[in-house]
Parts: sequence; structure tokens; C-alpha cells
Amino acid sequence: MKALEDKILKEGSVLPGQVLKVGSFLNHQMDVPFIMEMGREIAARFRGEEIDKILTVEASGIALAFAAAYQMGVPLVFAKKNKTSNVSAGVYTTAVHSYTHGREFQIVVSREVLHPGERILLIDDFLANGCALRGLMDIAGQAGAAVAGCATAIEKGFQGGGDALRSEGIRVESLAILDGMEDGKIIFRHNA
Amino acid sequence: MKALEDKILKEGSVLPGQVLKVGSFLNHQMDVPFIMEMGREIAARFRGEEIDKILTVEASGIALAFAAAYQMGVPLVFAKKNKTSNVSAGVYTTAVHSYTHGREFQIVVSREVLHPGERILLIDDFLANGCALRGLMDIAGQAGAAVAGCATAIEKGFQGGGDALRSEGIRVESLAILDGMEDGKIIFRHNA
Repeated sequence: MKALEDKILKEGSVLPGQVLKVGSFLNHQMDVPFIMEMGREIAARFRGEEIDKILTVEASGIALAFAAAYQMGVPLVFAKKNKTSNVSAGVYTTAVHSYTHGREFQIVVSREVLHPGERILLIDDFLANGCALRGLMDIAGQAGAAVAGCATAIEKGFQGGGDALRSEGIRVESLAILDGMEDGKIIFRHNA
Repeated sequence: MKALEDKILKEGSVLPGQVLKVGSFLNHQMDVPFIMEMGREIAARFRGEEIDKILTVEASGIALAFAAAYQMGVPLVFAKKNKTSNVSAGVYTTAVHSYTHGREFQIVVSREVLHPGERILLIDDFLANGCALRGLMDIAGQAGAAVAGCATAIEKGFQGGGDALRSEGIRVESLAILDGMEDGKIIFRHNA
């Protein structure tokens, strides 16, 4: 998505540790019409696919997932990162390692909102090593739901998580794929 | 907002400890068109007010805040609950006590996304004792921004947080106000 690449180049910055900072429009402050545009692009890419529900994980994936769900006319479920008193007995849960936070956390989805046979689109803002998406796939599997595919805004292609999923036959659509960010210079992947 | 009261009565349930469970449409699974409707209602209530930005706190407030921001044509900032490596030096931070989680946590907003003189609308999904909104007010104050008002989907009026804010002259718009939920029976407040 050219508009996203342009925005990353214009507003993003590369921090030490190959961190791409896009807090001006994606994951801290949010450029709402732009995120709605990205949701429209995700809906367009998955047009023709039967999708019953979108599943994301809190917190920064929620806005993009909401935008895509609005464009596709399907409900959205977000996995919670801690079991709270608001999610009653009967949950699916799995462990996810976060490299950003340097720790493992549980993600939790109530059995009441994910059902056998449903076709699920997984959405997150970032895809790096793929741990978060694999956690959501595990949750979907526990529910007996089918994963129709994954969509993310920004994939760090050089970390390999997206390509590993693709090599397993999972459809992964990322609106911008970074193949490198050495010395602060961002290189996008442009496949045919 | 009659449609929200109806939905609470139809889909919500009261758990022990005066917890209102609305995870089927608001804070776990999300009824996206309905949340967009609530965003439209918030925009209508604040029409004529000068508002530059919406501020919420992760995670379950993000969708409603996104919907309102979309309807009002303003950017959205969500406060993060932990300092991550993605928020660089220069942040506003304050402590918020969460009764749901039974602990205190820090909320953090980068100085880059909140500025002196901006007029801020604070949005959250729930308003009970008002701790989260007061934390956001503190953050706005640190930034030298003005709070134009607060909007929430569901206010537990019987916990007093909303009325305390109103008594201090802060405009608080809640789309549904519960004045009681004794014995599982939900009583809505209907002022003139």
C-alpha cells in the first residue's frame, strides 16, 4: 500500500534495536481516516473470502481491526492480555512471548465469542516474528474455528515471521513489508 | 441512548461484585456498527464544541474512541498502560488505580502527541469511580491541554465517579447511566 509506505517514510523513525516508531499515526496517536483507509484495503484484499469474524489482540491492533471489521461488516473480538474478572469461566488461553516487552504473557478469549466452524481473519498492527499471530491461531484452533488468513499493517519481513506463516500455506497480507532498516534506512519489499 | 439501554438489557448480564458483563458487544466481542453508532452519538452531543483530539486509555476504550474520532474528524491518542520501548524519552505519566484488576498501573502518553493549548475530549467505555478519567485529566494537565469534556458508553452512576466530575464543572456525557444493579436488576437514570 503505497500510501502507508509514504507515511512510514515521512512520519516514521528507526530506533535502536530495529524498532520502527510510528506512534504519530498508528500505535499511539492514530490517524483515524488513514487507519480507516487501511481497513478498506484489507477488506478489498479479502473480498470473496468467507469471513465471519475478525480476531485481534489488545491494544494497538484494535483500531486497525475495528476499521477492517467496519468495512467488512463483521464483528470483532479482541483477545485480552490478562484474565480479568470481566471474562467469566470458560476461556481459551495461550502463552505469547513479546519481544517488545521482553516477557511472556497470556492471551485470553471467552468461549462465548468464538465458535466451531467460524472463519476468522486475524489482524494486528505489526508482524515481526509472528508470535502474536501464532497465539491467535492457537486460540482459533482451540475454538474449532478456521483461520481464513492474517492481515497486518506493517510486516518486518526481515524477521521472517510472515514468510514462515506463508510457507505453511497461511495467507498473510501486510500493507507494507520492510525487508531491511539498516542504518536507519528503510527498504520495502515489492514483489510482483 | 435508548439503543444502548436496550442492548444492555438484552445482551448484558450482572455478575457478582456489581460487574456488568457486556463482552458480547462492547469490551471483548465488539458490535462494530453499533459502536460506530455510539461514536456518532458522542459526536452529536459535542457538536459545536471545539475539540482538537480524543484521548483514551488502552484497551477496551479504543474502539469507541476510534468511532467517535472518525465521526468528529479528529485524531485519537491512547494512553499506554506500561512504558514500552516504542515510547521514547519524554512522556507524561500518572498512576491509576484499577478496581477491576485490583492494582495500580502507570498510564503513559508521549509528549510528542499531546500539546499545550489543545482541547481534548476524554473517552472510555466504562465510568465507575472515575479513576481512569482522572488519570487522563492529569495527563492532559501535564501537557497544558484543556479538557473539553468526557464521554463514556456506560456509567455506573451509583459509584459516583461521574457525578463527582460533574460537580467540579466537567462535562460528562454517558450514553447509558446505571443508577443501580441490585439483585441482577438494572435501573437506568433518566434525567430531564
